[in-house]
Amino acid sequence: MKLLTLARDLSRRKAREKHSLFIAEGVRSVEELVRSGLKVRGALVAPQLATAPRGQALRATFDESGIDVLDVSEKDFRSAAQTESPQGVLAIGEVPVRSVDTLEVGAVCRLLVLDGVQDPGNVGTILRTAAALGATATVALPGTVDLWNPKVIRSSMGAQFTHQAFHAGHEELIAFLGREKIVLWATAANGQPLDPASAPGRLAIAVGNEGAGLSTEVADRAQQTVSLPIAGNVESLNVAVATAIFLYELRR
Amino acid sequence: MKLLTLARDLSRRKAREKHSLFIAEGVRSVEELVRSGLKVRGALVAPQLATAPRGQALRATFDESGIDVLDVSEKDFRSAAQTESPQGVLAIGEVPVRSVDTLEVGAVCRLLVLDGVQDPGNVGTILRTAAALGATATVALPGTVDLWNPKVIRSSMGAQFTHQAFHAGHEELIAFLGREKIVLWATAANGQPLDPASAPGRLAIAVGNEGAGLSTEVADRAQQTVSLPIAGNVESLNVAVATAIFLYELRR
Repeated sequence: MKLLTLARDLSRRKAREKHSLFIAEGVRSVEELVRSGLKVRGALVAPQLATAPRGQALRATFDESGIDVLDVSEKDFRSAAQTESPQGVLAIGEVPVRSVDTLEVGAVCRLLVLDGVQDPGNVGTILRTAAALGATATVALPGTVDLWNPKVIRSSMGAQFTHQAFHAGHEELIAFLGREKIVLWATAANGQPLDPASAPGRLAIAVGNEGAGLSTEVADRAQQTVSLPIAGNVESLNVAVATAIFLYELRR
Repeated sequence: MKLLTLARDLSRRKAREKHSLFIAEGVRSVEELVRSGLKVRGALVAPQLATAPRGQALRATFDESGIDVLDVSEKDFRSAAQTESPQGVLAIGEVPVRSVDTLEVGAVCRLLVLDGVQDPGNVGTILRTAAALGATATVALPGTVDLWNPKVIRSSMGAQFTHQAFHAGHEELIAFLGREKIVLWATAANGQPLDPASAPGRLAIAVGNEGAGLSTEVADRAQQTVSLPIAGNVESLNVAVATAIFLYELRR
């Protein structure tokens, strides 16, 4: 498939899953993608890249790295771009092969489980935070937005290019946790107050859907449900904020 | 001024500042506004409110509370609404009179200072978090987005209706901190690792602009600059995430 047609197609989740490809858009995301070492299938470049900050350097990097570049008109670029004021560059990357089977777990680990978190901006922020705070991996259960959605990538600043983030089914995850003797904690507003000192070495922590909370699979399997103490007149914390506090408090 | 004209006008920051009024839009925000006890100048209602969840109950609340209601067509409502799929209700609230002069400070306080934080979604999330984690107040310095911006209110879920959040000038804040013997800590990537145990009873903590960091006024006045330890390959945390972790770690 031609690069332009492929790039347009990859705006749909089904197409991303079928091809195992995703789009990184904008100078910064594409720089991160090239730096990450993930395989790059090709790049689309529109004339305005020449005037974008670091645009010419990025173009040179494509040539040095042997990355296929297709020069397109601004109009064609817009037909594939997701942002409102595109910088004139996007790259098609290969989704890395990751699963519970490729995950290496040491004596101490912090696994983050996204149990149906739907907002792409929140999930992107969570991935960026998980990478920054040294989480071992992030596992997205069914109902979670596609980790390779362009809005997630924008909001994560490409954290998933290197952070071990991937999708998995409930049973797959739960079997893995059992096999590796990883304790699962759930988070919910009505849980016990978080006590980081009581956390085991190998821990997975699950955060639920913004409205509906946790799936029954996760709630049934969790050894403990923990919560953050918050003021009575505030209903809840934003899911990315709550996740950040949990990961910080439980970091090793 | 008629309610509809006023509501349209209040989409501009200058108009909000001139009238000391703001707009809460959508069922949930308006419910929060009415519950907060802030003065409500009036409400606009479009036909679709009758079919929105809790819409009719809200309409009844207006009548019970003696709030002026103007029924408008869907088209007129859209001309004043900020959201893409409006629920057919908005209310005009009076910005509460708050300043360093109205702020009561106990032996222990946690003041959050927003030093030029520009993104409305981030500032809304920060206000919601500050309220949830029991911060004493949030002071917005010049360069920060209007705390009464509709996007900020949406993202905060109306936390600023009751949380003591207000705008102040650099000199005003710094004189207040001196008078009240409140220690100012700045936050920056190159600061000392945060040690919550060393925090004084009366503490203000400043977070800076997403790109440019702290103003010189704040940087010069801060007794200490603190940072969160993050992985070397990640540039930074999102400002709302970093602020949440600081507030949680420093909560009393």
